[in-house]
Amino acid sequence: MPSISFKGKKMPESPIRKLVPFAENAKKRGIKVFHLNIGQPDIKTPDCALEAIKNNTVEVLSYSRSEGSEEYRQKIANYYAKNNINVTANEIIVTTGGSEALLFAMGSITDPGDEIIIPEPFYANYNGFSTASSITVVPVISKIEDNFALPPIEEFEKLITPKTKAILICNPGNPTGYLYSKEEIQKLAKIVKKHDIFLIADEVYREFVYDNAQHQSVLNDFGLENHAIIIDSVSKRYSMCGARIGCLVSKNKDVIATALKFAQARLSPPTFAQIASEAALETPKSYFDEVIVEYKDRRDTLISQLNKVEGVKVATPKGAFYCVVELPVDDADKFAQWLLEEYNLNNQTIMVAPAAGFYSTQGFGINQVRIAYVLKKEDLIKSVNILAEALKKYNQN
Amino acid sequence: MPSISFKGKKMPESPIRKLVPFAENAKKRGIKVFHLNIGQPDIKTPDCALEAIKNNTVEVLSYSRSEGSEEYRQKIANYYAKNNINVTANEIIVTTGGSEALLFAMGSITDPGDEIIIPEPFYANYNGFSTASSITVVPVISKIEDNFALPPIEEFEKLITPKTKAILICNPGNPTGYLYSKEEIQKLAKIVKKHDIFLIADEVYREFVYDNAQHQSVLNDFGLENHAIIIDSVSKRYSMCGARIGCLVSKNKDVIATALKFAQARLSPPTFAQIASEAALETPKSYFDEVIVEYKDRRDTLISQLNKVEGVKVATPKGAFYCVVELPVDDADKFAQWLLEEYNLNNQTIMVAPAAGFYSTQGFGINQVRIAYVLKKEDLIKSVNILAEALKKYNQN
Ligand SMILES: Cc1ncc(COP(=O)(O)O)c(C=O)c1O
Ligand SMILES: Cc1ncc(COP(=O)(O)O)c(C=O)c1O
Repeated sequence: MPSISFKGKKMPESPIRKLVPFAENAKKRGIKVFHLNIGQPDIKTPDCALEAIKNNTVEVLSYSRSEGSEEYRQKIANYYAKNNINVTANEIIVTTGGSEALLFAMGSITDPGDEIIIPEPFYANYNGFSTASSITVVPVISKIEDNFALPPIEEFEKLITPKTKAILICNPGNPTGYLYSKEEIQKLAKIVKKHDIFLIADEVYREFVYDNAQHQSVLNDFGLENHAIIIDSVSKRYSMCGARIGCLVSKNKDVIATALKFAQARLSPPTFAQIASEAALETPKSYFDEVIVEYKDRRDTLISQLNKVEGVKVATPKGAFYCVVELPVDDADKFAQWLLEEYNLNNQTIMVAPAAGFYSTQGFGINQVRIAYVLKKEDLIKSVNILAEALKKYNQN
Repeated sequence: MPSISFKGKKMPESPIRKLVPFAENAKKRGIKVFHLNIGQPDIKTPDCALEAIKNNTVEVLSYSRSEGSEEYRQKIANYYAKNNINVTANEIIVTTGGSEALLFAMGSITDPGDEIIIPEPFYANYNGFSTASSITVVPVISKIEDNFALPPIEEFEKLITPKTKAILICNPGNPTGYLYSKEEIQKLAKIVKKHDIFLIADEVYREFVYDNAQHQSVLNDFGLENHAIIIDSVSKRYSMCGARIGCLVSKNKDVIATALKFAQARLSPPTFAQIASEAALETPKSYFDEVIVEYKDRRDTLISQLNKVEGVKVATPKGAFYCVVELPVDDADKFAQWLLEEYNLNNQTIMVAPAAGFYSTQGFGINQVRIAYVLKKEDLIKSVNILAEALKKYNQN
């Protein structure tokens, strides 16, 4: 039997995959599982997007342009203009989710064996996309004590080698919920220009910022025209994760020309999803206002509840809908499995994402989990209560 | 300004991309261009698929399972059973087009620097996916004189090295239209088992076979359970190119487990497209019967017309909807451009795909073009007439 390659074997597993069968078994035993483990919002997709799909007049479902339709890209450019991001339709390539934009970005600017520096903890699939692109992630540690703020810029500088092609940030962050300040982006801008490398910013949670904070895009006024690449997505913005539409944005012509070749090889992004995503741009502001109020409320509830639990430490998120929580356990992975396999409180339990999968440094995040606040407030309160009781029981054993 | 990598620069351009602006200019000058250059069928998408989209009841457009929904994969397995391909739902991973299935297959079984042997001419994007996967295509020449039949098996054997991980065939072939016989697949089966490498078969044109020929799948009775990987797609089968749904099929558990990690990293295939593709499986047999009659008719017309043109040589296709045509010109690339830039017959001209892009050996296919017979018969007749007149004029200069 032919052997699967090393690269194949090294393709990392998703941090929660191992837990899925335990969650399924718990459900079979009649236990309700609160899913704090995934970034799948429960928010309704805007009507305008769903209506556009129902009213579509497609007769031959043909390939669209590889870079996305002209009209859609023009409308995306208008959306960016409202966010002080000054780009033209030709500086945008529509992709199959932010996921594909990440693959195109990594593929376009690296050779096999090159390196990308990423503050950790980071979105676990950056590991998968790097492996698929035959490049190496070089982590810089950010700390829960600092709310996962940008590590000192010297920590980045120490790690830059001739193989370093980019720094990749996620802003606001998954799993940290951290929102980078203007000063932090300025520091990053300075260092990428000094070393002439790229700054890739995954801004798929751009709208999800709380406390009247202002999101700083790498294509705002930081002079990064040649150095910045934005990764974007409709998945979270419009609760359209299943559409699979995102985009890659850059004012660097070489980046766009090269990413376009990747886009051409896979022919086109999905047509129905583009129809829905184009229509979603008409979503009224009131939709977002309500969503943000809802998430802020959930965050406040979750964090205040967590802060009451003994031995728990949590970094207060300023954006996105995740937080990283340090637990008084040795091994959060085992604890997460125990929650599903052995524990229940009145036939209810919780599923959390062990945080080790969000670190690439071995041994980090072992006692941390990521909690997504994508559930209703009542359910978040119940969930933290379950966590508190479970911790008492677990630590008695 | 940071530099784009070698890998990025090496990402090949699509063979027709250079011609697109010339076609656009011709249209601006009022010239009608017959598009013989692309594999975009003009056939209507089945009503059942389009209706399913209009009647969808999605409220939160959420991620689906990374491997595709259970129900859909079960139905795909039933479809395969009817084609004497005996697989379970768990041996199928739903992908974003056959394109992504190709990427997953290459990624799963290779390390950077590994090699895949492919008979040429071949689907040009195999080059792009190989580059993206940091592997090398090793071509084996098939010849127009032999109708592009399988090259002698010794030619493959000569090229197998420790880095060779697979042989990749396209059956029926794009651009050749060649349909491999049972004996040819048997020969390939023998060699991949002997050297313990994979046989990847791109079978996206499975239904498009003419003259009552029988399609031979690598997962028919060839004993390739451990060695075969099928690449499949709804794009051509149901004229649903814009859906972006395909699948990877293998009975080799390691292949599926590894490909699943690639699938998980990119989260899920598009939801609306899965709804349409699942419904498309209910397409009545009469739809395909009509489509095949239509394509056979187009093929017969095209080939008989081409055979009347002096100096033109064409391999008669037995499947898919392409043929490779040798022209009495020095450089088909220049000729194709001239057709768009300088030529017209009563304000009409044709766009063809220069075949050099389908070869990876430098200098091959220089005087060949690929013609897709995706137009109505009358238009094919007009197109060949334009070609004949154009050749006379071109060769006078
Ligand atoms: C930080 C981040 N980037 C990118 C993605 C990819 O999302 P998608 O491919 O659905 O756009 C996600 C999804 O959870 C994410 O959290
Ligand atoms: C031989 C072959 N394989 C794969 C594909 C990819 O098609 P898709 O990604 O639309 O399934 C094509 C498209 O033309 C093709 O001709």
